[in-house]
Amino acid sequence: MKQPEPPGSGQEPSRTPDITPLLNVLRALYPVSPAVESYLREHISIATVRKRKMLLKEGTHCEHIYFIVKGAIRGFVREGQRDITTWITVENQLVSSIFGLHQRSPAVENIQALENIQALENCDLLAMTLDDLQVMYERLPESNILARKLLEIYYADAEKRAYIARLTKAENKYRSFLLHHDPLSNRIPLKYIASYLGMTLETLSRVRKKFSSKL
Amino acid sequence: MKQPEPPGSGQEPSRTPDITPLLNVLRALYPVSPAVESYLREHISIATVRKRKMLLKEGTHCEHIYFIVKGAIRGFVREGQRDITTWITVENQLVSSIFGLHQRSPAVENIQALENIQALENCDLLAMTLDDLQVMYERLPESNILARKLLEIYYADAEKRAYIARLTKAENKYRSFLLHHDPLSNRIPLKYIASYLGMTLETLSRVRKKFSSKL
Repeated sequence: MKQPEPPGSGQEPSRTPDITPLLNVLRALYPVSPAVESYLREHISIATVRKRKMLLKEGTHCEHIYFIVKGAIRGFVREGQRDITTWITVENQLVSSIFGLHQRSPAVENIQALENIQALENCDLLAMTLDDLQVMYERLPESNILARKLLEIYYADAEKRAYIARLTKAENKYRSFLLHHDPLSNRIPLKYIASYLGMTLETLSRVRKKFSSKL
Repeated sequence: MKQPEPPGSGQEPSRTPDITPLLNVLRALYPVSPAVESYLREHISIATVRKRKMLLKEGTHCEHIYFIVKGAIRGFVREGQRDITTWITVENQLVSSIFGLHQRSPAVENIQALENIQALENCDLLAMTLDDLQVMYERLPESNILARKLLEIYYADAEKRAYIARLTKAENKYRSFLLHHDPLSNRIPLKYIASYLGMTLETLSRVRKKFSSKL
């Protein structure tokens, strides 16, 4: 991944990250105070990452939270030799190590150590270190209101993913997927969608054919 | 479920909910301001619910958030005739409709409508309405810091549940379950654990026998 620009490396407007897409997402939830907006502008860097590159490899620590301006990213874990896609996300979403956000006492075998994050397309990202995020929470208490509202959404989404993963019938899984992730169905390579839904590529293709013939 | 005491119905100490267990959980995360403590004391009621009773039935709205003082509770959804346990939780944990916490635009077919919450043991609960929770967030901004920290934990837990649900090998599933929920393994009826892990009761019994013979 391209390193974020060092601070003060350029004053021309093109060097300054345009954080408008992030501000739009935040403002839809709650007013962004001038202090929070300034803090974000000062501590956010631009990062680009090429298709198929890893943002996080298992066994390493995630140091950043990312906002996707353009592109698609997946999370995955391994079970033996198998690679299981645990989430797929696109523009206007935040991405980080879910476990990195909350540093609990390390378990002997913890899931954090299994997490992988990979770009599925060339991505333009806004990046902030998790350290800077913590400082923002402490210095600007109103930022906790925004974070609380974001976490409510991401928590409900995680629960929806758990729900889809627990369904047993391939058709029900794909129907739920379309309901919550319709724009992904013709954008993301099918092998990742199949892995996310816990079915083979053949089963997914069969179900998709069935669904499209119903239209 | 027993109705919460009407406000002002009794002044004797035994009528006042003892919110110490909740305060202990919160204080482990962040200092609880005197204003937040007073608000909690004023707006929390005691609720008791008998084993097997429902706290939330699919198609209805969850109006409360609960803190479990004593007992065990599960969440479940239905897939056709099948009942799928999505979480199991015990003392010192909060319980509510995950989707009720964040009211998103209603979908044609939404998961919220499928949620069920049921007591697995006789439970003593502390209850607060979701309306009172919202008022607390608005009036006492510092309560958002506590909520943000709690949500980080619950979000990571939801992701762990999604992870366990995605594993394919029964032994890996049960190993992850023991890692994260060991105290439940000899307390909760096996049929709910089997349902939570997406395996038959027979498979769970076989795996448990294997694990216990390794000790």
